[in-house]
Amino acid sequence: MSLELLILGSNSAAFAHRRHHTAQLFKLQDQHFLIDCGEGTQLLMKKHKVRLSRIDHIFISHMHGDHYFGLIGLLSTMHLFGRQKELILVGPPGLKEIIQLQLRYSETALNFHIRFIEFTPHVSEVIYDHLKYTVTTIPMNHRVPCSGYLFKEKPKKRRINRKLLPDMELSHLQIARLKEGEDVLNENGTVKYENKVLTLDPNPSFSYAYCSDSKYKPELREIVEGVDLLYHESTFANDMKDRAEQTYHTTAEQAATFAKEAKVGKLILGHFSARYKELDIILEEARDVFSNSELAIEGTKFFVDGK
Amino acid sequence: MSLELLILGSNSAAFAHRRHHTAQLFKLQDQHFLIDCGEGTQLLMKKHKVRLSRIDHIFISHMHGDHYFGLIGLLSTMHLFGRQKELILVGPPGLKEIIQLQLRYSETALNFHIRFIEFTPHVSEVIYDHLKYTVTTIPMNHRVPCSGYLFKEKPKKRRINRKLLPDMELSHLQIARLKEGEDVLNENGTVKYENKVLTLDPNPSFSYAYCSDSKYKPELREIVEGVDLLYHESTFANDMKDRAEQTYHTTAEQAATFAKEAKVGKLILGHFSARYKELDIILEEARDVFSNSELAIEGTKFFVDGK
Repeated sequence: MSLELLILGSNSAAFAHRRHHTAQLFKLQDQHFLIDCGEGTQLLMKKHKVRLSRIDHIFISHMHGDHYFGLIGLLSTMHLFGRQKELILVGPPGLKEIIQLQLRYSETALNFHIRFIEFTPHVSEVIYDHLKYTVTTIPMNHRVPCSGYLFKEKPKKRRINRKLLPDMELSHLQIARLKEGEDVLNENGTVKYENKVLTLDPNPSFSYAYCSDSKYKPELREIVEGVDLLYHESTFANDMKDRAEQTYHTTAEQAATFAKEAKVGKLILGHFSARYKELDIILEEARDVFSNSELAIEGTKFFVDGK
Repeated sequence: MSLELLILGSNSAAFAHRRHHTAQLFKLQDQHFLIDCGEGTQLLMKKHKVRLSRIDHIFISHMHGDHYFGLIGLLSTMHLFGRQKELILVGPPGLKEIIQLQLRYSETALNFHIRFIEFTPHVSEVIYDHLKYTVTTIPMNHRVPCSGYLFKEKPKKRRINRKLLPDMELSHLQIARLKEGEDVLNENGTVKYENKVLTLDPNPSFSYAYCSDSKYKPELREIVEGVDLLYHESTFANDMKDRAEQTYHTTAEQAATFAKEAKVGKLILGHFSARYKELDIILEEARDVFSNSELAIEGTKFFVDGK
């Protein structure tokens, strides 16, 4: 099991230097999540050979156009291609109203059901609880209600040591209990085989935090502490710190400081201002503080597959 | 003076074969009109070096996404680039409500004013009356209220024959009257110079009709009769005539028949179904009926500059 993150778009408000608006495809176990969906995201998915049918969850961070104007087009194309599976759409207040209004005027009854889940602005909550993972909101500090998302695998079961197993006669129930950490018992209740002999430690549980548009907000590090992968907006370099503050954005240095203090595995920087044709300054500034920093270059895939 | 039409996008509902959703830039005298605005239109404008600031009028035909999902993004970019000039936005009922709702949730007060003009479905009316031209709606027959647009220059003034002018002593008022077709009179009211001697016929007045999504509707030929340039949707070739009928679209043969009977100068075919990777069948079928037919290939410019 591993995490995989494909950057589809990484620029801030204006399209510039061949960079598109924010969109990411995040893969956790067998699930594909689309995170944010700027205009043209469906074209970028086509370019990078992402099959629309694999996406069952879309997470939108906030109602600025560079993060969601591609959504209605994507939903329409899913409809056109005959989608019938339910789609889970997590986002801010207003998203449902806009999508439903657009569908009403096009007189479109989608072939598939959308389960809208609206986050509560300004608080952190488990917004989606799956058997194998949770998604928790990260309350950013932006000009409109804005949430990041923390995707976190739940602790996994212990692994049976297959090398030893053929010598034992174990029932399915006994194996299931071993995976839960229990010993195998004799009929009289005494220990027949110790768990620690027959099992190996679980695979690690991975986590990814997506921190969308925000003024630098160091107190969020408690929520994202120790994640394997952190995406954090870094619209500006540090010489534009005042501008970042005014426009409720973060600098590369601030994002890196945040990553360092939150002890994350890797930092990915994105949401670049159109003023930066070259992004070296952003990357260098971050690496001076936190060496394991990378740029969210479109088409790049980031993997996490072990600690 | 001439007409100029730049095809930005020409495909129907799905993006396919590198063809984008419908959008056209139409230039009449010194005015630039954007007609329909599918998702990604602002990127296509960037590609074809169209300056956003030149556009003061946008016409939307109907509320299917492949004709307007790029509009809110375009308006947002105009705002971001500091536009202050008023923008005239002509479209169907519902467009204003959707745009305003999206602006409300992004907490955006545009720097510029949008003058919304809503067309009345199912009737033909002069929707925009300018000193030099009119725009008349063309009521298409589609699944939702849909309008084409007829852009028509008003008759122009007579032209002064500059070769003769230096020999005369004429006031500005006399020249203005000559342009209106009047003679130059002596003080006693008798004719000093005949108009026909000093002036030439006016330049021709050009016209362009944009016929958007519709079931074949031959009775519209009265509205578009004799236009220099006609764009007509031709989603399908004639072997898909039943499908065209069911989905409220037109075949290439029908579009060409319409062009022929309306005695237009040139026909441009567009809004192609994704099923056609190659468009030869569409073009050939149309040319069999009306030889001066062309395909709306993206990036192509069509000119009309004389009869």
